[in-house]
Amino acid sequence: MDLIVLGAAAGGGLPQWNCAGGQSANVWHNRLPAQTQASVAVGSPETGYVVINASPDLRQQILQTPQLHPRDQHPMGVRNTPIRAVILTNADVDNVAGLLNLREKQSFDIYGPTKVLEVINENSIFAVLDPEFVKQYPLETTEMIRPIPGVEFELFTVAGKAPLYLEDSLGFESGDLGFTSGIEIRTETSKTLVISSCAQIDQKLQERIETADHLLFDGTVFEDDEMTQLGLGEKTGRRMGHLPISGGDGPIAQLSHCKLKTKRFFHINNSNPIWDEQSLAHRTIRDAGWDICHDGLVFEI
Amino acid sequence: MDLIVLGAAAGGGLPQWNCAGGQSANVWHNRLPAQTQASVAVGSPETGYVVINASPDLRQQILQTPQLHPRDQHPMGVRNTPIRAVILTNADVDNVAGLLNLREKQSFDIYGPTKVLEVINENSIFAVLDPEFVKQYPLETTEMIRPIPGVEFELFTVAGKAPLYLEDSLGFESGDLGFTSGIEIRTETSKTLVISSCAQIDQKLQERIETADHLLFDGTVFEDDEMTQLGLGEKTGRRMGHLPISGGDGPIAQLSHCKLKTKRFFHINNSNPIWDEQSLAHRTIRDAGWDICHDGLVFEI
Repeated sequence: MDLIVLGAAAGGGLPQWNCAGGQSANVWHNRLPAQTQASVAVGSPETGYVVINASPDLRQQILQTPQLHPRDQHPMGVRNTPIRAVILTNADVDNVAGLLNLREKQSFDIYGPTKVLEVINENSIFAVLDPEFVKQYPLETTEMIRPIPGVEFELFTVAGKAPLYLEDSLGFESGDLGFTSGIEIRTETSKTLVISSCAQIDQKLQERIETADHLLFDGTVFEDDEMTQLGLGEKTGRRMGHLPISGGDGPIAQLSHCKLKTKRFFHINNSNPIWDEQSLAHRTIRDAGWDICHDGLVFEI
Repeated sequence: MDLIVLGAAAGGGLPQWNCAGGQSANVWHNRLPAQTQASVAVGSPETGYVVINASPDLRQQILQTPQLHPRDQHPMGVRNTPIRAVILTNADVDNVAGLLNLREKQSFDIYGPTKVLEVINENSIFAVLDPEFVKQYPLETTEMIRPIPGVEFELFTVAGKAPLYLEDSLGFESGDLGFTSGIEIRTETSKTLVISSCAQIDQKLQERIETADHLLFDGTVFEDDEMTQLGLGEKTGRRMGHLPISGGDGPIAQLSHCKLKTKRFFHINNSNPIWDEQSLAHRTIRDAGWDICHDGLVFEI
């Protein structure tokens, strides 16, 4: 059973379409490879694959991932896919827009919190996913599902915030509204956590991470104010619901005692210096035993 | 002033994510290059660019088109784009989903028929386009706009059909509902028509094409029933609102008398044999003076 990183970058991707600064500049000038927006797939050729979050880059991600290509000589005919299910951990555009790429009367299942499914069903544009073929299943936290054999998925609540486009109607200071979740992936031999947004590492989350083998953790920003420092925007990482990597309450400091086999940053913003292997920030995370994800990274779980 | 083909393929792109047949097979097996979904940009480095239709592949299209990259040393700072406006010719997912890639508090204008703007505004997910930065302007047919200097754009009604995801509520047999438009692009020296959907070449359309220099025309299917022949789906070209290229009422037969400088098929489906230069269909269109578009094609208008 493999975990494939389909996209390692945070919303906007690397480079961001309208940004000549930060790490995007390194990509425009061919000093760093481009990276698509955060998504992972879990599965094997025998079982098919589960995609966790449908990024706006999903069509490109499928094309660059041979494991997700349709098969020749398939019993279902020429129209087929190894993608069995999509699990949505929240309703951000970054995580749901890619569903629009999965049209064309193809059967697969969507799992996600009721609030996330509601957002999809309230937007008529998602009606391209014909309910005759695409079934939706509410997935509440602590509930366990097995969309493919040999692996279990469980959503869990993470401190976060409402999606940007619902902030006005819900109010920003509304705290955790069930919009932000991490996902625990269990096989017979390992436990993997994928947490792309995290505003706080509380006791409960720490305990969950202590018993995991592999961790993909919110690597949006290295420093809380790096976006303003670089002239990329007015918001801090915390304002966007993301703990800065380097903070005293951040993942390096708070998770140093965890005996993970692998720990990697994921959902890395185009402002984040850890993309650049020559940077002090990159050296800092490597010295602390962390690595970064990149598009196409595959590891066994 | 240039026209850049950002994407030449019809909805789904080439290859289609869930299709191992038709021309998609040629791409999966590296016999043909991949193509993104239909979109063009018009402009110059001095004036900036207007994008016609925002395909789901827009982020990838911007990345592979140097003319659309943000600039270093820009007076607006590191966050900038040469994209000044997006014109939407209809409300199909293929034409509007890419707007979700243009978030991040960047100023640009959206022009489109009132009915198309209504669809966008009824879908809360498009609220990521902050109205403080992104202005919407209704663009009715016969109205002329100049979003950048030196070029005029005019929408015109084309026989077509409602977007797939609104078919149920509107009824398929509703005829032309103002959802399908072509676009006429006039510079000081030339007139170009971009028509990605066309269900019928009537007298009025024929007259418009007779006075044009360059034509990008609906090349969705070569034969009306090619999708069923290939096992790719149940719909004919006509059922999807597209005239088959080879039909007696199709573009080759109906436009043979037009003295265009260039005529190219555009919005070409992954079922269409004209993608393959070795095919009889490709030879047929070349013998009739037509060519095909491909991603990255640029010509002066």
